[in-house]
Amino acid sequence: MENSVILEVVILDIKPELLSKYEPAFEQAQEIISGRKGYISHQLQKCLEKPNRYILLVNWQTLTDHTVGFRESAEFQEWRKILHHFYDPLPQVEHYELVFKNGL
Amino acid sequence: MENSVILEVVILDIKPELLSKYEPAFEQAQEIISGRKGYISHQLQKCLEKPNRYILLVNWQTLTDHTVGFRESAEFQEWRKILHHFYDPLPQVEHYELVFKNGL
Repeated sequence: MENSVILEVVILDIKPELLSKYEPAFEQAQEIISGRKGYISHQLQKCLEKPNRYILLVNWQTLTDHTVGFRESAEFQEWRKILHHFYDPLPQVEHYELVFKNGL
Repeated sequence: MENSVILEVVILDIKPELLSKYEPAFEQAQEIISGRKGYISHQLQKCLEKPNRYILLVNWQTLTDHTVGFRESAEFQEWRKILHHFYDPLPQVEHYELVFKNGL
């Protein structure tokens, strides 16, 4: 594993009428991402202030493991098919690299 | 420790003319947050797509450990004094709770 861990960050706003179906769909879809080359870990977290908002955090070994290895794969098309119709607006994906960390 | 871990998420856009001074200031300020009741861990990560953007992720044992215990403390005033003049716009703080996680 390389040291250049990259954090993918995506704020996800779910169409209110589809909200009750989102978590079961994500639970199914997360198996797709978990098997990809360079995948390290992920979390889906639900916002307390905005009830139709989630944040997806994914750690990848390198930027291209996400942007090329996953997003240009057949598996990404399956991921899109399961999840993208829930989102309004379509989410903006950003990538981050660690500066400081502390604690557990 | 309670099980209700809360993730504080803050997207931080730094005034470009102050960018070179932000990481040293944050390095100093993070000692303030690390000592607070209910603090578990934090990360500061730097955006690859937007060079003046960071994300702060802080795990707290409960929501009120952040919103009351920290934000109403004298230490928070010190935190503000060190950091808030770097931000434009002033950041929006959100809190999240875990739905799914996988991997390391």
